[in-house]
Amino acid sequence: MLNIGLLGCGRIGQVHARSIAQIEGARVSVVADAFEDAARALSDKTGARVMEPSALIESAEVDALVIGTPTDTHYDLIHAAAAAGKAIFCEKPVDLSADRIRDCIKVVESAGVPFMTAFNRRFDPNFANVQARIAEGEIGDVEIVTIHSRDPAPPPMSYIKSSGGLFRDMMIHDLDMARFLLGEEPVSVYAVAAALVDPEIGQAGDVDTAAVTLSTASGRICQISNSRRASYGYDQRIEVHGAKGMLRAENVLENTVEVATSAGFRKSPAQHFFLERYETAYRSEMAHFVNCIANSKPIAPGIEDGLRAQLLADAATHSFKTGTVVSIV
Amino acid sequence: MLNIGLLGCGRIGQVHARSIAQIEGARVSVVADAFEDAARALSDKTGARVMEPSALIESAEVDALVIGTPTDTHYDLIHAAAAAGKAIFCEKPVDLSADRIRDCIKVVESAGVPFMTAFNRRFDPNFANVQARIAEGEIGDVEIVTIHSRDPAPPPMSYIKSSGGLFRDMMIHDLDMARFLLGEEPVSVYAVAAALVDPEIGQAGDVDTAAVTLSTASGRICQISNSRRASYGYDQRIEVHGAKGMLRAENVLENTVEVATSAGFRKSPAQHFFLERYETAYRSEMAHFVNCIANSKPIAPGIEDGLRAQLLADAATHSFKTGTVVSIV
Amino acid sequence: MLNIGLLGCGRIGQVHARSIAQIEGARVSVVADAFEDAARALSDKTGARVMEPSALIESAEVDALVIGTPTDTHYDLIHAAAAAGKAIFCEKPVDLSADRIRDCIKVVESAGVPFMTAFNRRFDPNFANVQARIAEGEIGDVEIVTIHSRDPAPPPMSYIKSSGGLFRDMMIHDLDMARFLLGEEPVSVYAVAAALVDPEIGQAGDVDTAAVTLSTASGRICQISNSRRASYGYDQRIEVHGAKGMLRAENVLENTVEVATSAGFRKSPAQHFFLERYETAYRSEMAHFVNCIANSKPIAPGIEDGLRAQLLADAATHSFKTGTVVSIV
Amino acid sequence: MLNIGLLGCGRIGQVHARSIAQIEGARVSVVADAFEDAARALSDKTGARVMEPSALIESAEVDALVIGTPTDTHYDLIHAAAAAGKAIFCEKPVDLSADRIRDCIKVVESAGVPFMTAFNRRFDPNFANVQARIAEGEIGDVEIVTIHSRDPAPPPMSYIKSSGGLFRDMMIHDLDMARFLLGEEPVSVYAVAAALVDPEIGQAGDVDTAAVTLSTASGRICQISNSRRASYGYDQRIEVHGAKGMLRAENVLENTVEVATSAGFRKSPAQHFFLERYETAYRSEMAHFVNCIANSKPIAPGIEDGLRAQLLADAATHSFKTGTVVSIV
Repeated sequence: MLNIGLLGCGRIGQVHARSIAQIEGARVSVVADAFEDAARALSDKTGARVMEPSALIESAEVDALVIGTPTDTHYDLIHAAAAAGKAIFCEKPVDLSADRIRDCIKVVESAGVPFMTAFNRRFDPNFANVQARIAEGEIGDVEIVTIHSRDPAPPPMSYIKSSGGLFRDMMIHDLDMARFLLGEEPVSVYAVAAALVDPEIGQAGDVDTAAVTLSTASGRICQISNSRRASYGYDQRIEVHGAKGMLRAENVLENTVEVATSAGFRKSPAQHFFLERYETAYRSEMAHFVNCIANSKPIAPGIEDGLRAQLLADAATHSFKTGTVVSIV
Repeated sequence: MLNIGLLGCGRIGQVHARSIAQIEGARVSVVADAFEDAARALSDKTGARVMEPSALIESAEVDALVIGTPTDTHYDLIHAAAAAGKAIFCEKPVDLSADRIRDCIKVVESAGVPFMTAFNRRFDPNFANVQARIAEGEIGDVEIVTIHSRDPAPPPMSYIKSSGGLFRDMMIHDLDMARFLLGEEPVSVYAVAAALVDPEIGQAGDVDTAAVTLSTASGRICQISNSRRASYGYDQRIEVHGAKGMLRAENVLENTVEVATSAGFRKSPAQHFFLERYETAYRSEMAHFVNCIANSKPIAPGIEDGLRAQLLADAATHSFKTGTVVSIV
Repeated sequence: MLNIGLLGCGRIGQVHARSIAQIEGARVSVVADAFEDAARALSDKTGARVMEPSALIESAEVDALVIGTPTDTHYDLIHAAAAAGKAIFCEKPVDLSADRIRDCIKVVESAGVPFMTAFNRRFDPNFANVQARIAEGEIGDVEIVTIHSRDPAPPPMSYIKSSGGLFRDMMIHDLDMARFLLGEEPVSVYAVAAALVDPEIGQAGDVDTAAVTLSTASGRICQISNSRRASYGYDQRIEVHGAKGMLRAENVLENTVEVATSAGFRKSPAQHFFLERYETAYRSEMAHFVNCIANSKPIAPGIEDGLRAQLLADAATHSFKTGTVVSIV
Repeated sequence: MLNIGLLGCGRIGQVHARSIAQIEGARVSVVADAFEDAARALSDKTGARVMEPSALIESAEVDALVIGTPTDTHYDLIHAAAAAGKAIFCEKPVDLSADRIRDCIKVVESAGVPFMTAFNRRFDPNFANVQARIAEGEIGDVEIVTIHSRDPAPPPMSYIKSSGGLFRDMMIHDLDMARFLLGEEPVSVYAVAAALVDPEIGQAGDVDTAAVTLSTASGRICQISNSRRASYGYDQRIEVHGAKGMLRAENVLENTVEVATSAGFRKSPAQHFFLERYETAYRSEMAHFVNCIANSKPIAPGIEDGLRAQLLADAATHSFKTGTVVSIV
């Protein structure tokens, strides 16, 4: 039985607690949150003990940590966890600064603790299926990857302002997905973007509509498009064109029902947002973490993947701001 | 060059003339119609000569006849054409009376002239593809056939009254399709039906909503449903479940465009009615007729197929009227 | 908190236990099974106490019973549970004999205990959505219902022999779905069937391929087809044609991925079988049961629905055996 | 009756002749080709006279010219046709040099003759439907346009070498489509490309895989991807994301048939190549040309559209060669 200490009992912490409850061989044994009420509520539901974060990290009752606290706390928690020799599951982004992520990599590597960066979309059964079939050679060498990722509606302005910008907050998932599917590291990044959805977002120095082109050393191409608004639900699609064929994963709709009237044939909107859309992905990423630790297997995506995605997001931000093509070294 | 004489220059005659214009090795050489204006208009368009029907049938300028006149004239025209030794392409139904069709079979067989019954749906590229793949064994032995056939709206009451009833006028196409797909002759027929669309249809002794079940000696089953109304266009679908898999042909929509909004994902309605939906089928059936004659190949569907479908329609009508299961011998 | 006693800890009992674990306001408090090991395993997982069935039914720790034992035990357990005044959730079929179900109705009604017959498919989110939209009038009056229901592969012969036959064991779900969607009681039943999948099934007096036609007093029609084999997964589709349009629920596929190659565009098979396909339905039916009891609301489907479906299955069996149309009074 | 003179009787000339035969109010009256046999064959089929090209252009029997000759002959023919005062329908590209197109614009404008550039895809019923619905405001302001365009297989190397390169030969259609859908002129172009399909194409100085990003002054974005190879047929898709929703046109498949087996649900490949895929588009563009002339209406796309697409193709070529973002003024 893997005893898990949960740092952060907000929305994402609760998602992870429900996932763990469905996984054989793991349980939430201790929880901690800056707001004691949040920790208390999750304790009532799962039977876990409540501790202070620092006590939780040190506790002998805890084998592995799930970090679901605000991004700016990750750095210190990772350092403490590594010092305590605990396996770490950390929400993305690891940090908004690439240099600080490099610091974390050092302490994690020198401590030798397992570390998983929670790029949950890699565990979506549809996207995972695409990647597995590429790896098996079903479509031959990858040539063009297309990723559409559009939120149903923009977040509050307060969130926008502290998010690090669209490329680091939203597109980072797609940049990681691009790496996952391309099978080669991008060497150049070009971004165009604008505030077409809400001018207030533009006034805050951010964008809400963006397109990025990545290319690899051998000439593979990835095109990503993002929008902070999609009237038809959470639009999450990938497509990979290869030498022998194409693989694509369509949106997950609310249901399979189609109505036919004089207006035509109509299906339901896409599942509304990430908690529904990636429910299975959250469960699968946690099962992967538990399974890797239980069987001493290497974990992917690791902390290095967290850094790589961050560097691409930084490059895209720079490309957009300068209007130039940015090389990745 | 096959010289074709066209009997009947109304809507369906014009369809056949356009088809012939696109086929190598055939042309409309003579046209005839009870209304001279109709014949004249088609002559202007195609360059064909206008003759009286009887002269057309006898004309040495004509190798083959296309009969697109009202159903009650088919009997005499077939007799005259057989006597004149012409190949015959005849619109369905051959006749509303099975006994009169049997008479026609006698004269056609004794004259030895090629005869094609215009069950155009067998030549729809989608349905033809399904049948060809069944014949190639792709889904193993046929077990259950499902046919949905629904018109966009009921015809005028005047048409209903002279149509012979839904089973003989509308479902006859589906009964022929059932024979085409089942690969065995039906031995029992059961029909339920009602006037749900328009009570006036019921008052005229007809129905507008019907379901028929056919079964064959070896136990294969076919379920057909018909409605005189479908708000979403001309609903024409078939599905065949076999030992190794299922084949199905979906509706042909007006276009491939999908719009996504908060109401969901919406495609266009089905193509409105038979002239659009079966445009390719009309062209292919005529090409088949021309090709069979040009190469002295046997023609299917023949006049016997016209009789078989009529007998099934009669049996369905009887089943509906008596509420019993009717055996076909 | 609703304390639930679980009678039967086999496969379906475990499904219900997992569902209950995800529902607010309910828990499995006591479990029982003829095989103590099965009860013990479920107790370890859920923390529930193990009791003898009779003790469980009487226990003050139990507010409601979930009966997931073999069909032939339902009758006695329902009688005991009614006598003990417990709310009852009972797996379908309530019993293979309509007369014995009538006995159960008497004791349940006289005891006044809530009773739910577990027709889980009514709670499938896709099918429930279709029914709700019919009820809201989205497609006008229902005219033709089509139900396709095909298992991936036949059960073992031992199961077939004690199943009561295809109509009572398999089609009973579709007969209940027909009632759920038609909005009127069927008044006539016609069935055709054969053993096309496996002759041994025929030798055992059963069938594996069947089609049923139901009609209602006002002329509404339902066509059902069943097969014990579908190479492409568990085929579960419904379609409802109404005065204003059509609603249909397509199969749920394993994932949304499509591969395009020279062979065409290929999606995954349908979800394999009922445990996956109806996972959400099982959760929703149990949530409905808990919610109705917690809020003293009437429960549907009730025990009368269990009887009605059984009578239709009996009528279909009789129709198939006699080759006649059977009236329902 | 509009009398059309057809210059060029090769594959595309024959396509136009078939289209004209189906259009009311127009006929091919004269044909010309450098190879007399080609002209003769088309004359036999259509009844048109054969003339020398220069005689055809001057002929009083000709109201309008259809230019379907090799690209390098367009310049002189356009000049002669303008001088003769004939309406001109010209295959794309007008010329491979933007400066020479500017010359053509001058003579066409000064002669005041109607001119249509044959960007046939604008007349595809699916793409035309998308554009019309954008124009009607169905999805609000356009924000992101995505165009996938992939040929089934590369052309012969001899063709590649004289084509002007992928951007001018193949992507030019997509660049015109981008202008058609964006509703604003692109102001920046970025291209990445490689020879991933066939290294020989790369050795010839061309590419076979490319992605272009366009952006407009107001921030609208278009992403285009091209490949010279798609195992699954001719891949032609567009998608437009707007403020209120998304419109997309999917591929046109060979038929509507789906087969279900243990491998899943499989549909046919996309229609193989442009002659089938755009058969309706060819007919519609010619009908548009005839209709505009018959009714003295302005024609679009005109010669200016030919120039604009060429300038974008030049910019994309330059961007690819320099690795920089190119501004359009």
